Amino acid sequence: VAIVLGDWGNTRLRLWRIEDGNIAERRKGPGIAQVGDPAGALVSALGNWPEERVILCGMAGARNGLREAPYVPCPAGRSAWLERSVDFALSGRKVTLAAGVSTRDAGGRPDVMRGEETQIFGALALNPRLATGERLFVLPGTHSKWVRVSEGWIGAFRTFITGELFGLLEQSSLLLSGDGTDADEEAGFDAGLERSADGSVAASGLFEARAAQLLDGKSSSWARGVVSGLLIGGEVRAMTPADRVVVIGTATLSARYAAALTRLGVPFDAMNGDDCVVAGLRLLDASA
Amino acid sequence: VAIVLGDWGNTRLRLWRIEDGNIAERRKGPGIAQVGDPAGALVSALGNWPEERVILCGMAGARNGLREAPYVPCPAGRSAWLERSVDFALSGRKVTLAAGVSTRDAGGRPDVMRGEETQIFGALALNPRLATGERLFVLPGTHSKWVRVSEGWIGAFRTFITGELFGLLEQSSLLLSGDGTDADEEAGFDAGLERSADGSVAASGLFEARAAQLLDGKSSSWARGVVSGLLIGGEVRAMTPADRVVVIGTATLSARYAAALTRLGVPFDAMNGDDCVVAGLRLLDASA
Repeated sequence: VAIVLGDWGNTRLRLWRIEDGNIAERRKGPGIAQVGDPAGALVSALGNWPEERVILCGMAGARNGLREAPYVPCPAGRSAWLERSVDFALSGRKVTLAAGVSTRDAGGRPDVMRGEETQIFGALALNPRLATGERLFVLPGTHSKWVRVSEGWIGAFRTFITGELFGLLEQSSLLLSGDGTDADEEAGFDAGLERSADGSVAASGLFEARAAQLLDGKSSSWARGVVSGLLIGGEVRAMTPADRVVVIGTATLSARYAAALTRLGVPFDAMNGDDCVVAGLRLLDASA
Repeated sequence: VAIVLGDWGNTRLRLWRIEDGNIAERRKGPGIAQVGDPAGALVSALGNWPEERVILCGMAGARNGLREAPYVPCPAGRSAWLERSVDFALSGRKVTLAAGVSTRDAGGRPDVMRGEETQIFGALALNPRLATGERLFVLPGTHSKWVRVSEGWIGAFRTFITGELFGLLEQSSLLLSGDGTDADEEAGFDAGLERSADGSVAASGLFEARAAQLLDGKSSSWARGVVSGLLIGGEVRAMTPADRVVVIGTATLSARYAAALTRLGVPFDAMNGDDCVVAGLRLLDASA
């Protein structure tokens, strides 16, 4: 039996065609935020793939996605999450959308995720040891998530818009144009990490990156590193992880977080984001 | 005698034609960052005004401006600042560019200003009482400045990119489209101010504004208010002003800061930014 699994976020669509349990083919497409007609965009991305079964997570289940899938409130266990997925027919295919997860902190302030829960449940399936005891996951991204998992249940989480801020600031006036090396960027990253120790300075520390270009001849690469170090450092310090952390993500982004965690003395394990999301989507297939 | 005074920032040019000591006419033009040829843009903005004497502050004196004017390092007194201004001829006119001011904090990290020093020295000229003792000024803006003035000298300052962050976030995915009222925005502002008490949450608190739209039916106006309150509240709290503050700026922006200062129990006086910059530019005329 062959099926199609997919992760459809705001900025990109990734599809995997699974044949006899193995990834036979991959495809990419535009993010939900970039298409006017999600159903048409999905049909077009699937193209000549004949599979009748399609399972998606992420913003595909958002209000502006294909259909709205509910949020399962924390504490969210695997069974409740699997049960709350949404099925519908689309051009002769059966499409399943993963539910998201919502939480509230002690003060009642809400937070939401769509897609990361699939990676978390996938990671627990790949490594059942992680479904025992208390675990802290971080999933770097546009909206990075810190997720507390207790005995396999998603207990609480918190979102940081670190990736979005970095993207916005890259286009801002802070990073004067000019040459620079990778070594500059790394030195800047270290300076930003160090500076992030003072939690109050984010909006102020960001301007120092510009002032140092003007007064101290620092390169724009260095300033880019500072911005990254300041934002990621601030995020890691805000969570002040006490135990070992599991980083789930792409190699590039995870490397930044790995550098920050290492510098801040937090031990961690890394898992590949694609492996986790595919494993999570397979759970939805198995439960259908 | 008639002269032209001007404040040329990154985003706008403002010119005042002064006749017999009074403002006779005003003009606006594009910011330095928006023009390819600053000299040509200035000549074109001056147009048919016959005055031979033009005095400018702000990014006009930046590296990418008309000519580079130096930064006077802190502690920066009025005489040193007046002396370091730069004169040059442009199409038969004598143009003077105000110097900027630079500072370093205890850790050697640099900061710079261009334009705000003119407002500060102007404010001290308008109200000589402010040139005695220790005074704390805040100048809200794209890059807002908190400036410590001791016995009339600029002793130290710190920049927050609050206005720039707000502008970037307005275009981001955080503020879902949707209706809302001014009252919503004010309630959001208060919620953001309150939330800013936890200095560690900026990047996290910003996402809550989005989650509350999804889960609690909050409007985008409310979320806009939260973002504003979180950023301005974070800035005010980072400075933890112990004494009375002087706010220099436009009515709209100053009102936001006034609301934050009031809520946080910090007494303040407000001065009009245009009055202050014109008064500062007149000092440069008088010293020529």
